[in-house]
Amino acid sequence: MRNIKLKISYHGKYFSGWQVQNDVVTIQNEIEKSLKKILKEDIKLTGSGRTDAGVHAIEQIANFHTKNHKIELKAFVLGLNSILKEGISIMDASEVDLEFNARKSAKRKTYLYQIHNNRVISALEEDFYYAPRYKLDLDRMKEAAKFFIGEHDFIAFAAAKNSTQTTVRTIYSIDWKTDGDKIYFEITGNGFLMKMVRNIMGTLLEIGNGKKEVDSIPSILESKNRSLAGATAAAKGLFLKEVIYA
Amino acid sequence: MRNIKLKISYHGKYFSGWQVQNDVVTIQNEIEKSLKKILKEDIKLTGSGRTDAGVHAIEQIANFHTKNHKIELKAFVLGLNSILKEGISIMDASEVDLEFNARKSAKRKTYLYQIHNNRVISALEEDFYYAPRYKLDLDRMKEAAKFFIGEHDFIAFAAAKNSTQTTVRTIYSIDWKTDGDKIYFEITGNGFLMKMVRNIMGTLLEIGNGKKEVDSIPSILESKNRSLAGATAAAKGLFLKEVIYA
Repeated sequence: MRNIKLKISYHGKYFSGWQVQNDVVTIQNEIEKSLKKILKEDIKLTGSGRTDAGVHAIEQIANFHTKNHKIELKAFVLGLNSILKEGISIMDASEVDLEFNARKSAKRKTYLYQIHNNRVISALEEDFYYAPRYKLDLDRMKEAAKFFIGEHDFIAFAAAKNSTQTTVRTIYSIDWKTDGDKIYFEITGNGFLMKMVRNIMGTLLEIGNGKKEVDSIPSILESKNRSLAGATAAAKGLFLKEVIYA
Repeated sequence: MRNIKLKISYHGKYFSGWQVQNDVVTIQNEIEKSLKKILKEDIKLTGSGRTDAGVHAIEQIANFHTKNHKIELKAFVLGLNSILKEGISIMDASEVDLEFNARKSAKRKTYLYQIHNNRVISALEEDFYYAPRYKLDLDRMKEAAKFFIGEHDFIAFAAAKNSTQTTVRTIYSIDWKTDGDKIYFEITGNGFLMKMVRNIMGTLLEIGNGKKEVDSIPSILESKNRSLAGATAAAKGLFLKEVIYA
């Protein structure tokens, strides 16, 4: 048995998210189908975590076990890409310890959210930025975001149908970069609940447009009440950027 | 009568090129239809030039005449974008002299060609780069490209069905930039024949992979024989970047 780790990029627009579901096109399902074609065996792919419909990945990590000892990994990557649906690329494949599990072994994840702080956005960029109708006050957003750092119960920022055992997560860092009208928000934590990054961003957007107060985050966290946080931000601005295992 | 100049960006993948044709979706046609809806009159849009199916525009320029004196241009841009098909954005609209003609007044144009010098490319970038199967020798391509600078008869690099009066054009500059595996080629000239940039790039690609000699350009130009130049390079790597009127 061999354990193969994949680095995967995908364009969220073309898929109903990562996880296998019936009757819709998902990334996990497309890759499993292609792996089966090449390896001639049923393959169960384990991703580092799900991403929702519309969310992109610069680098998602997944692994699978195979009985096939013949595949040469460089040719395997090219072959896999040649049969995979448009919108998914396998960036790398490497053999790892049998114990490695893309989900359970993950220590930290970084997500990137891209905002175009101007309604008029190039057709070449519109798939990758959320462009709000109103100008955002970035200073207010930066100030408010600091309240998310550290260990908190993030249930107020989770999807209603959250089913994880604990809703306590630790945010290690939040970074902001700007380039003209573009705003890049990066958040690193030990894990994220369903829709957590988009709900954090949705709340920051409402602080940026003056709808919510800069110091409203601590009371929303404390309330554990989803309805006090902002609306879920658009999927197309969100990218899974990195999964860290060390 | 007012003369309105538009700055337009578009994602080439979604369109059968710029120019109005029957039974296919073209950029000119989509914008003319949207202008008619807003302005309640038939509009003839003049672009700085055609772009082929699949070619992108960072900034295409077009103009049209309208009898409508009421439109406020900022709101007009937002309204136009709200009804335009995905893949086209109006970046700006301004009123210009009645004599301004986006095609005839153009003095220079810059095209950008993007290459990913590695077959394995992110799903987020594959719409915007040509990723050749073999590693290119960039030094050879840079050396060869110098032969295009200046005034030449470019008939050997034009589409077979070229119908312009003269096939003599002047190339003012060619610039190369790199960023990791990415290669950015910019070419500025007083005008370009149909498929000329893609045929120039197709020839440079064959020089980069060793199929043609570095010093083959002068004899291809002199031959005036299309079949001696390289194959037409993929449309998805090509962007109309700027049209200069000054």
